[in-house]
Amino acid sequence: MPQISYIYDFGSTSANKKLLGNKGAGLAEMLNLSLNVPPGFTITTDLCKFYHQSHGQFPEGFEAELDAAIIRLETKTNKKFGSKDAVPLLLSIRSGAVDSMPGMMDTILNLGINQDVAQRLGALTGNQAFADDTLHRFNESYHKLVGVASTDLKVQLIAAIKAVISSWMSDRAIAYRKINNISDEHGTAVNVQAMVFGNMGDTSATGVLFTRNPSSGKKALYGEFLLNAQGEDVVSGIRTPRPISKTKDQPGESLYEMMPDIYSELEKISTLLENHYADMQDIEFTIENGKLYILQTRSGKRTARAAINIAVDMVSEGKITKEEAVSRVDAESLNQMLHATISPDCATKHLAQGLPASPGAATGIIVFSPYDAEELSHHHKVILVRNDTSPEDITGMHVSCGILTARGGMTSHAAVVARGMGKPCVCGASEIKIDEKQGLLHLGDRIIKKGEVITIDGDSGKIFAGDVPTITPEFSENFSTLMSFADEIRTMEIRANAETAIDVATAIRLGAEGIGLCRTEHMFFEPQKIALMREMIVAPNDLLRQKALDQLLPLHKADFKSIFKSINGTSINVRLIDPPLHEFLPQGEKEKNALATALNLPIDIIDSRLHALHEVNPMLGHRGCRLGITYPPIYAMQIEAIVTAAIELKNEDNIDIDLEIMMPLIANELELKNLRSLALNVISTIEEKLGTEVKYQIGTMIELPRAALQANKIAEFADYFSFGTNDLTQTTYGISRDDVASFIPQYLNQKILAHDPFTTIDQEGVGELIAIAIKRGRKIKSDLKIGVCGEHGGDPASIEFFYKLGVNYVSCSPYRVPIARLSAAQAVIKTSK
Amino acid sequence: MPQISYIYDFGSTSANKKLLGNKGAGLAEMLNLSLNVPPGFTITTDLCKFYHQSHGQFPEGFEAELDAAIIRLETKTNKKFGSKDAVPLLLSIRSGAVDSMPGMMDTILNLGINQDVAQRLGALTGNQAFADDTLHRFNESYHKLVGVASTDLKVQLIAAIKAVISSWMSDRAIAYRKINNISDEHGTAVNVQAMVFGNMGDTSATGVLFTRNPSSGKKALYGEFLLNAQGEDVVSGIRTPRPISKTKDQPGESLYEMMPDIYSELEKISTLLENHYADMQDIEFTIENGKLYILQTRSGKRTARAAINIAVDMVSEGKITKEEAVSRVDAESLNQMLHATISPDCATKHLAQGLPASPGAATGIIVFSPYDAEELSHHHKVILVRNDTSPEDITGMHVSCGILTARGGMTSHAAVVARGMGKPCVCGASEIKIDEKQGLLHLGDRIIKKGEVITIDGDSGKIFAGDVPTITPEFSENFSTLMSFADEIRTMEIRANAETAIDVATAIRLGAEGIGLCRTEHMFFEPQKIALMREMIVAPNDLLRQKALDQLLPLHKADFKSIFKSINGTSINVRLIDPPLHEFLPQGEKEKNALATALNLPIDIIDSRLHALHEVNPMLGHRGCRLGITYPPIYAMQIEAIVTAAIELKNEDNIDIDLEIMMPLIANELELKNLRSLALNVISTIEEKLGTEVKYQIGTMIELPRAALQANKIAEFADYFSFGTNDLTQTTYGISRDDVASFIPQYLNQKILAHDPFTTIDQEGVGELIAIAIKRGRKIKSDLKIGVCGEHGGDPASIEFFYKLGVNYVSCSPYRVPIARLSAAQAVIKTSK
Repeated sequence: MPQISYIYDFGSTSANKKLLGNKGAGLAEMLNLSLNVPPGFTITTDLCKFYHQSHGQFPEGFEAELDAAIIRLETKTNKKFGSKDAVPLLLSIRSGAVDSMPGMMDTILNLGINQDVAQRLGALTGNQAFADDTLHRFNESYHKLVGVASTDLKVQLIAAIKAVISSWMSDRAIAYRKINNISDEHGTAVNVQAMVFGNMGDTSATGVLFTRNPSSGKKALYGEFLLNAQGEDVVSGIRTPRPISKTKDQPGESLYEMMPDIYSELEKISTLLENHYADMQDIEFTIENGKLYILQTRSGKRTARAAINIAVDMVSEGKITKEEAVSRVDAESLNQMLHATISPDCATKHLAQGLPASPGAATGIIVFSPYDAEELSHHHKVILVRNDTSPEDITGMHVSCGILTARGGMTSHAAVVARGMGKPCVCGASEIKIDEKQGLLHLGDRIIKKGEVITIDGDSGKIFAGDVPTITPEFSENFSTLMSFADEIRTMEIRANAETAIDVATAIRLGAEGIGLCRTEHMFFEPQKIALMREMIVAPNDLLRQKALDQLLPLHKADFKSIFKSINGTSINVRLIDPPLHEFLPQGEKEKNALATALNLPIDIIDSRLHALHEVNPMLGHRGCRLGITYPPIYAMQIEAIVTAAIELKNEDNIDIDLEIMMPLIANELELKNLRSLALNVISTIEEKLGTEVKYQIGTMIELPRAALQANKIAEFADYFSFGTNDLTQTTYGISRDDVASFIPQYLNQKILAHDPFTTIDQEGVGELIAIAIKRGRKIKSDLKIGVCGEHGGDPASIEFFYKLGVNYVSCSPYRVPIARLSAAQAVIKTSK
Repeated sequence: MPQISYIYDFGSTSANKKLLGNKGAGLAEMLNLSLNVPPGFTITTDLCKFYHQSHGQFPEGFEAELDAAIIRLETKTNKKFGSKDAVPLLLSIRSGAVDSMPGMMDTILNLGINQDVAQRLGALTGNQAFADDTLHRFNESYHKLVGVASTDLKVQLIAAIKAVISSWMSDRAIAYRKINNISDEHGTAVNVQAMVFGNMGDTSATGVLFTRNPSSGKKALYGEFLLNAQGEDVVSGIRTPRPISKTKDQPGESLYEMMPDIYSELEKISTLLENHYADMQDIEFTIENGKLYILQTRSGKRTARAAINIAVDMVSEGKITKEEAVSRVDAESLNQMLHATISPDCATKHLAQGLPASPGAATGIIVFSPYDAEELSHHHKVILVRNDTSPEDITGMHVSCGILTARGGMTSHAAVVARGMGKPCVCGASEIKIDEKQGLLHLGDRIIKKGEVITIDGDSGKIFAGDVPTITPEFSENFSTLMSFADEIRTMEIRANAETAIDVATAIRLGAEGIGLCRTEHMFFEPQKIALMREMIVAPNDLLRQKALDQLLPLHKADFKSIFKSINGTSINVRLIDPPLHEFLPQGEKEKNALATALNLPIDIIDSRLHALHEVNPMLGHRGCRLGITYPPIYAMQIEAIVTAAIELKNEDNIDIDLEIMMPLIANELELKNLRSLALNVISTIEEKLGTEVKYQIGTMIELPRAALQANKIAEFADYFSFGTNDLTQTTYGISRDDVASFIPQYLNQKILAHDPFTTIDQEGVGELIAIAIKRGRKIKSDLKIGVCGEHGGDPASIEFFYKLGVNYVSCSPYRVPIARLSAAQAVIKTSK
């Protein structure tokens, strides 16, 4: 076996990122482009891996390899490392991971200096101040990052390399990687480079520039520099840097004005590098006595807005393809474009934190009940604060500008409904305490009274007292252009989950091609309907139950007509009632009494019905198709309302929609067989009565492990499958989305879970069941239409997974539709690679 | 294609049960044995299938085939059907299904008679009374079963055949098949046979006999007969039949005394048929003018006691093998041998019915709280009546002789615990209403006060007011012999689920070879421990939490020492705490106040802790290994208690057990990795401290779909798997065992479910996950030990399924151990066929 080489001189090899790291590859590439890069060499990521695996040992022969590399560098620079006599060679030792981790790891500059060398350097440059400054800088940073400096410069070099490698496993580096989903295994390379000096006086400088504005995306050099300084000074903020380009605020201060030749050279280099990489670059440079050196180039970090603008502009400029443009924008970051966000300049400290359940920032006065929300919303912006929400809170949520709950996870009722409504929501804020009776919210050590103002940030989960500055979003033309690129590329259909005419309209406006989930239970919480619904539930006999259903029918039909009108002639997947009936009954004493009075029934009857309907685990209880099978008249009424609405719309307004009627919680093909036959009977009766036919399909949710396994049998009675990935995750994992807040954070912390499985689909477990179901379903019906309507339908990583499995469409909250469109396009691009 | 034959003359073909039905095959067989059977023919089950599939049509050519058969019969009997001149041929038309369904379908006798034929018959026999009786009998039964008799005898014959075939789909026949798990598809054959007449006077008779006593199994002819009668008379109960054998009660009345020659002929035939079928026979006979005819033989129905005695006796007699003996006893019927049962003579009408959750009958005074149960149980037998039970009720359940709940299914808390304790239990009796405050139980239209007596029947789910006669069980020598046969044959180990020394002792006495599930949470409900447990849970900081755990340790250790002593040196699988912590906290105001006082804490703290621990779906909440990972000191304390107990027992009493420590609710291999490492640390510390080693294995429950799918990864950290089939069923189906009572009955009724999946394992869904998990687990560890500890471990059909999948052991309630032993042997026999 030939000995492995751990060191490559810059430019001596092709730009292998995995081996050389991002910075090392960039340096190699720049040398290939004949840019003026100080010479040096890269110690590969393999060394870092070896070092950590062998608990701090270098491989045999490495130090000899290092010595040889130093000698080559001395030859190239005509300087000598550690010599009092020759021109001294000083080195920078910098980390360089595969994925850029700006500022997370250690850098040691000016290594190779000591008292004697500094003397020599001062004498040679005739600039003792520079030499002393350099020695001082070295001592300070070495002491801080490595420890007491040995007098042997070679020992210092080894120690510095070890320090840089060790910083790969520092707490902050690990934390950064965790947040950014970077594996701990890659390791970092180390770049050892001959120093050039920006601190040699006023013809020297150091700076950082972006080839385009990283905040707006505007095409113009953007950056900062400092005269007579080294790189650290720009970052540290001790001195205020000057702008690269000319500005109104600091006339005469810019590099453009002070060093026009250098500026113009930088402009050329920027264009060269941007064209070479076909992306906006973040470039570090140093000017040593009027001579420009490029120290680093990398793809520049940017805001979502800038990312969109740069991507679309670069397509216009012919630099990248539409596919590349689509790949350049982080789909999740589009959230910033769709919701108000807390201003990055905000200095207010948050008082508590919950889960970031629905994005956006909201400021308003707090209320503790849906009734107060409705009353106060006439004159105020309100934030509804609850321990947790139930369908009873829906109307209150509708009139609120934000929702805060003390309990529940990312897919709790509050979170799901809030996302559906596009309202900011912070969930499971277990630190807060709600005293509903007194009307008090305990927020950290503050007590906020009902009617006082708070601000919640649904992107971070933070909760603030009072008003906090926010930024409102704007929809740019470039945004629409990027979306049109995505639509050209993607093959999956994107639908939305919505059940009100307003939500449907929002979804269509944001590009939804249909409604993938219309949850009918939400329609029963308006005063007139909830009263009838309750009457139906507590009815002492079938006759009175049917009477209530008969009265519900025209109201329910009106709901559907209004929604069907808004869907723009596309398709809509209507799910019949899913939650257990007790969710429709009042829980509080006051409301129970009101119901008893309204129905002229003794309170006992209400209590006994509530008691009979009580469930220990309602998630696994008498709900979904189990209701349809045990109380067929309820589903029959719903189907009649849906089909009649569609027929009337066709006859009155000539609007023809594709109707999909979906049965929830199927575990067994006989459930679906039973309900399919119920549906066909009701539909054919209505079609006959009204003399008009509708286009319809009868489908099923696949949201239980058993349904996934029995998909072949179920497919015989299903025109389509829709995966309810929330419930499928709940049952496959055995975790209730409403109860995860108490342990999921610790699971994520301890890395037992890589992601919250309610946010990103668990590919191994839940994903295998989905794959099984698709395979078995399509074995029976090769063209079976398959969609996803769970919360994962709006998550980029999950969308990619669904695409690979051959899912036909995903359906998500209206406000996630653009994210889904972009993700679906990215999935195509990623998979075709 | 040759034309299908739908008719076979008796004896013209081999005894194909599937085609000829049970009765037809028996008649064919008896002719082959040269018994005196009246001639006739069988219309095959295929005709019945054709008839029902074609909505009441006969196949082409069938009537011609029938005509030919009648002509053959006329030739054989030298009589003529429907002739006024010749000796008249009268026919019996009887059903004959593949599985005997006594009395469920229609029989028409004496067909072929009318006014004219009766005249002729009277003249020929010189017995007009007989002829008139026969005509009268025919008219009555034809009118009842078919309708108005046509004057055409051929038309009557066709109508009678149709009536018999139609009775296959009568409500009572369908209901019978449902109860006995017989498929609707088999269809019935129809046997058309020349009549012989028991109603020709006092030398004629008809009767039924069993070759052994069907109640006790005693080897002696047992049965009844009537002089001058037809078969219906014996069954109808209009006249009181006489005994076949000599009795003390009716001297001179028996067949033995009245017709000794016939008796001795019957004795010979009985022996012949019993030897031929190698089983106890149920024989119908008719004596026509002193001549004996055999009309039917079939395997006789018998009680569990008789089944055991006959099977064991027949092995002694060399008639059957041990395998056959084991196959002859219905495993489920052993319940009758293990628990008190309601006397079959009981005439008391039940007032309400629930689910038969734990077998046996119990009579006692009712109490509505575990506290009253404890207090009143000192002087009374008590039955605990609750809406549902929780672990708080355990001590109350222990002192009660039976449990009745208004809510919950076959595997609700009450049911599982009651079965574990071997106590009768009726669950989910939704018709009853409990008024705890007033101390009243509404039972049908009766109101029973606290302290008044009721009787519950855990075998049928029936609830009676007052005391009802019961039969107490006896353990016979034959029972033990049969069990020893089973133990020789079976290959699966049988263990029990138990967590008290008493239950463990019961399990060992009933043949358990170890404890397959020891649920530690049940150990914390004694006063001293529950107080410390609560202290631990509400502890405001880690220090105080640890203090409570330190105090729990010696008590918990003592629990284990007492159990380990009882297991007789076998193995025990200890499951660490599984339920969520809130189950240990008090729910009532009184108990909460008591806790606050005891801990010297404000009630607010208790309330706030209860509030924080509240869960929407506790089944899917913060429980099982999730507790172990988020509060490691709890599991650490348990492991220390277990291992210390084992070591002390080894050192003090030289008792060496095989310890298995099991982690519940694993979904992810990293959970198990984490807890395995916790366990290994604790164990090695204790082993070192005490200088003694223990034999132990660390295993995992497989009770979530994800765990089943990820079994290969989980197997890396598991020494064994134990399937928790209750929870696996709950999550795979998405049904909570505590909430199924509201819809499972309707599902069973509508045949959407064939069985309650909590009683018999769902082979298709849950079963596939088990099969996957076993395959994937053994791929990693080929000899991985695999057990089942869910309720299905005691269900015969499920045990057979587990055996086929290669499960090493099943574990069940102590009182089901004999059933499991027998079932495991039957599985071997059935599978080897």
